[in-house]
Amino acid sequence: MAKVVVDVMLKPEILDPQGQAIQRALPSLGFDQVSSVRQGKHFELDVTGDDADRVAEQVAQTLLANPVIEDFTVRLAAE
Amino acid sequence: MAKVVVDVMLKPEILDPQGQAIQRALPSLGFDQVSSVRQGKHFELDVTGDDADRVAEQVAQTLLANPVIEDFTVRLAAE
Repeated sequence: MAKVVVDVMLKPEILDPQGQAIQRALPSLGFDQVSSVRQGKHFELDVTGDDADRVAEQVAQTLLANPVIEDFTVRLAAE
Repeated sequence: MAKVVVDVMLKPEILDPQGQAIQRALPSLGFDQVSSVRQGKHFELDVTGDDADRVAEQVAQTLLANPVIEDFTVRLAAE
């Protein structure tokens, strides 16, 4: 069984209000060094059988990401 | 400027209804090989100055994760 990680992020040209809200809160908490924050989703899938990364890629394309506004990356977890 | 990635996941013993909902939807979409799905949050921070990963770790601890129910990992992006 393979553990596959899928990260889904809004495309760079899409506004990210969640990330902006975090970024604006940081200076008042004493963090002045953070110039940009973008928030996305992180999925950890346990996939059985062969070609786990191909299966995870299809899952991401079908269900986890909205390809109109989001990009995703698929990678096997290091463990 | 360093790009730092923070991944926040519910602790393993905490129920993840979002992940379960995805997992239960997969068989009807033709994906039978996925035995577990857990969902978390993914943040990409641009941090200026030195020790970007230490700053990002403090940001994660303070604002991005709820340490009662969530674990987080911090890593410098490959680029």
